[in-house]
Amino acid sequence: MKITVVAPSCTLKREAAEAVEAIVAERGDCELAIHPQCFLSDGHFAGPDEARLAALREVMADPSVDGVWFARGGYGSNRIAEATLADLPDAARGKLYMGYSDAGFLLAGMYKAGLDVAWGPMPQDALREGGEGAVGRALDWLVKRDPSALEPQLNGPAMAFNLTVLSNLLGTSLEPDFAGIELLIEDVSEHLYAIDRSMFHLTSTPAIRKVRQLRLGRVGDILPNDVEFGIDETAIVADWCARWGIHFGGSADIGHDARNRVVPFGGTKS
Amino acid sequence: MKITVVAPSCTLKREAAEAVEAIVAERGDCELAIHPQCFLSDGHFAGPDEARLAALREVMADPSVDGVWFARGGYGSNRIAEATLADLPDAARGKLYMGYSDAGFLLAGMYKAGLDVAWGPMPQDALREGGEGAVGRALDWLVKRDPSALEPQLNGPAMAFNLTVLSNLLGTSLEPDFAGIELLIEDVSEHLYAIDRSMFHLTSTPAIRKVRQLRLGRVGDILPNDVEFGIDETAIVADWCARWGIHFGGSADIGHDARNRVVPFGGTKS
Repeated sequence: MKITVVAPSCTLKREAAEAVEAIVAERGDCELAIHPQCFLSDGHFAGPDEARLAALREVMADPSVDGVWFARGGYGSNRIAEATLADLPDAARGKLYMGYSDAGFLLAGMYKAGLDVAWGPMPQDALREGGEGAVGRALDWLVKRDPSALEPQLNGPAMAFNLTVLSNLLGTSLEPDFAGIELLIEDVSEHLYAIDRSMFHLTSTPAIRKVRQLRLGRVGDILPNDVEFGIDETAIVADWCARWGIHFGGSADIGHDARNRVVPFGGTKS
Repeated sequence: MKITVVAPSCTLKREAAEAVEAIVAERGDCELAIHPQCFLSDGHFAGPDEARLAALREVMADPSVDGVWFARGGYGSNRIAEATLADLPDAARGKLYMGYSDAGFLLAGMYKAGLDVAWGPMPQDALREGGEGAVGRALDWLVKRDPSALEPQLNGPAMAFNLTVLSNLLGTSLEPDFAGIELLIEDVSEHLYAIDRSMFHLTSTPAIRKVRQLRLGRVGDILPNDVEFGIDETAIVADWCARWGIHFGGSADIGHDARNRVVPFGGTKS
């Protein structure tokens, strides 16, 4: 079982890489390779688009790699997502791709292209308080499909997204088919008015109204409004779902934190 | 010539209302009514959705009103935009609707519905340094279609939007037809990575690729990145346009500032 880490968005911190290597060594149930591209830096990104794309394509085409683990979020995977999916090598199939946050652009496009993807913790999460648990959960799913790593209320085909990322891929070539899906969303470091605006965009998009139900993960580090927004994130999401007849299923155990759990796209197929 | 101010987004400041009333009194070329709804407050908004919608619909249905002037941006016009456009009263036609920023949700949907709309300064701009000039420019267009108020390089059918607002209305029922349009965009108080992400969303939307050309207004109050993004907003926009074969026409004289100029949607028809 070989897992390779690549960074389609921002640069992986060395301390996070070392912490994950230590966790893997202690487990002894898989081989971990951290691609040197993870440590490149070019402005905001883990190297220029060409370098991030080349590393990802290299790992996708490598038949010895069983799991492709996105190093961290931030921003930037959208810049290479369409090129990532062009002329897929045979070896790209039969692997599991895992990440969350900005990696959602890739998860969406890859799932649409028939690849096996899952929302789940990433190596950079090792730096969070309690991050060892998050990393362990990701590895439990990557290595042995341990159901204890899963978001506990999953029931049928599902997807999970950062709300802002999802809003920004609607209508693009990356947009997957949401029909019959349980859609889990979360967000971080946004104003409540921006959460409301993204929910407007989401639920005003006809394709989204085909979801089976929608659940809300944690919305972390909400930025202050100059005037109090008036209602909280749960009420915002419930309100937009009610307006459009989307079933709101309550809370989901995902978020930008160490408790974040795994959501395999399309269901666990087990 | 009667102009009525309503506030589909946030509450108008009393001082702005008074400043605009003084400007109008001095000009003596129009009658200004500031709808009492402009001063309502309900959390983030200028009154609940129902009150904002009712005021706007009331003014749209009033045959004595020649110009409907949106008080200010902020956030919230999207929440009432679809209901605003249902079963349009006859009197809604033959008026000019003006605003910018968050009002773009309404401008888009109204233009799509065949109403006469223009991007332009709003009453709250009276509080900016140099705001009297902005308010005067808006009135010059509302009252007498003075071409000196216009964005100076307009050439054929055009539209103008706040980039983040435009990204959030793509794919919704408010989205107008961009074919052959000169599209002017601007933004304010965003991180450069978010500008890049919105430009990804914009240019990855097939309908946007039909524009005749795209020009960039001012991007104000850019929020700091923890790592320098690496390229500026002009390079970001030029890059995304180049990727998708959209003609980038350079700068536009619009923005969240006192210099903001008027852009009639679809051209000046003069």
